[in-house]
Amino acid sequence: MFIIGERINGMFKDVAGAIKKKDKKAIQALAERQVSCGANALDVNVGPSSDNPKEAMTWLVKAITEATDISLSIDTTNLEVMETGLNACKSKPIINSVNANEDKMKSLFALAKKHNASVIGLTMDKSGIPKDSDGRLELAMKIVASAMEHGMDMADLYIDAVILPVNVAQDQAIEVLKTIKESKLLADPPPRTILGLSNVSQGAQAQNKPLINRTFLAMAISSGLDAAIMDVTDKKLTDTAITAELLMGKQLYCDSFLDAYRK
Amino acid sequence: MFIIGERINGMFKDVAGAIKKKDKKAIQALAERQVSCGANALDVNVGPSSDNPKEAMTWLVKAITEATDISLSIDTTNLEVMETGLNACKSKPIINSVNANEDKMKSLFALAKKHNASVIGLTMDKSGIPKDSDGRLELAMKIVASAMEHGMDMADLYIDAVILPVNVAQDQAIEVLKTIKESKLLADPPPRTILGLSNVSQGAQAQNKPLINRTFLAMAISSGLDAAIMDVTDKKLTDTAITAELLMGKQLYCDSFLDAYRK
Repeated sequence: MFIIGERINGMFKDVAGAIKKKDKKAIQALAERQVSCGANALDVNVGPSSDNPKEAMTWLVKAITEATDISLSIDTTNLEVMETGLNACKSKPIINSVNANEDKMKSLFALAKKHNASVIGLTMDKSGIPKDSDGRLELAMKIVASAMEHGMDMADLYIDAVILPVNVAQDQAIEVLKTIKESKLLADPPPRTILGLSNVSQGAQAQNKPLINRTFLAMAISSGLDAAIMDVTDKKLTDTAITAELLMGKQLYCDSFLDAYRK
Repeated sequence: MFIIGERINGMFKDVAGAIKKKDKKAIQALAERQVSCGANALDVNVGPSSDNPKEAMTWLVKAITEATDISLSIDTTNLEVMETGLNACKSKPIINSVNANEDKMKSLFALAKKHNASVIGLTMDKSGIPKDSDGRLELAMKIVASAMEHGMDMADLYIDAVILPVNVAQDQAIEVLKTIKESKLLADPPPRTILGLSNVSQGAQAQNKPLINRTFLAMAISSGLDAAIMDVTDKKLTDTAITAELLMGKQLYCDSFLDAYRK
């Protein structure tokens, strides 16, 4: 399972505060903690409140790359902020994200090519997020086709079926699971699949969020999920990911399979 | 989710001891505890060490029915012990289990008819458990066909795809998930599906068993599992069952969905 740590996001108060105060140590500590918990990459999002998002992104990426050489997922809808972030990266970056709009795909896949980046493709377009798996798969197909036209390797494309909060869109979880499963049929070799996991429990009661996240993660892994942007510091969540992959035969069983995976 | 509590089984030392000492209170306490934890039925198995299994089964069933009127799942491979157990039941019983052998199906479906019992059908026969989902589905089809010939309602038939311990048969979990999903296509209306859940973690390290059980349960529910024989006293396990069913749209979301389900 490819895990992208979600914590360096300006939507969190501590991160917004660290950006404002240019507190490099706080950001580096968050990066190191996520890496030590098993993150394979770190998401980087300046958040909504930044006055100068380009400057904030450059500062964030530089702060992190001083502490770790892990891959960074540059998370922004702003093309200039994206380019700034990619320019500051030292390891192979991840573009988070493109959607199925022609103009977005054209500019972002060109950027991906230039920076040898992986790309997360959201199954949504100008009309929003389709209500069912057929609609999501139609958009996934557009993204796959555009990625191929731009010479992308399918191993570098992550289809994100966009899970919505179960408290307001309960019927969508099952559609997302179907989309994950069927995305694997869109190309051979297939694109990879990813989820922004925490969104499933957005708005649920705080004490139930980890339970909802880890239960849905097990379900999604059994549908073939390859990657997740998630709270890698939640040990019960990573335990679930490791165990679900074990049951899917993606890691050989040994008695200490949790420790073995983490080593 | 239809939950059958697994605890009244002579394989557990406390139950074997209670049977030996005719300690009715101990059995009734186990029955009441499982019911209070949310069991919809209770499995009853005299275990391997009983000198007189017919007498032990009658005693067990009578002890339980004095404490609760919940359905009992009579768990034995011995036809006479099965009949003895069914005779002692007061509520609609469950026959645990039949397999795909002609002689077994003939005698046990006849018993089911006589006692208006539900039946758990294991996808195995004289040759053992098939190695893949196709083999299991072939046996499931035989069981479905025999059940229909005997006039059984599909809502009373539970197909059990027989999960094996992940530590010795790791490749089987994914075959069981496929079998659960595809069992739903064998008839219309479809048979129900069940698992003897704890078997998946049999032989694993004790501290990992609950994690393996609840992770596999979430995965199986996302494949369409309807029922499980399981440790209903494991709250994290029942939390997982409730949450997975919520995500599958089988219960309406409310903020206190765990409490709401349990009420």
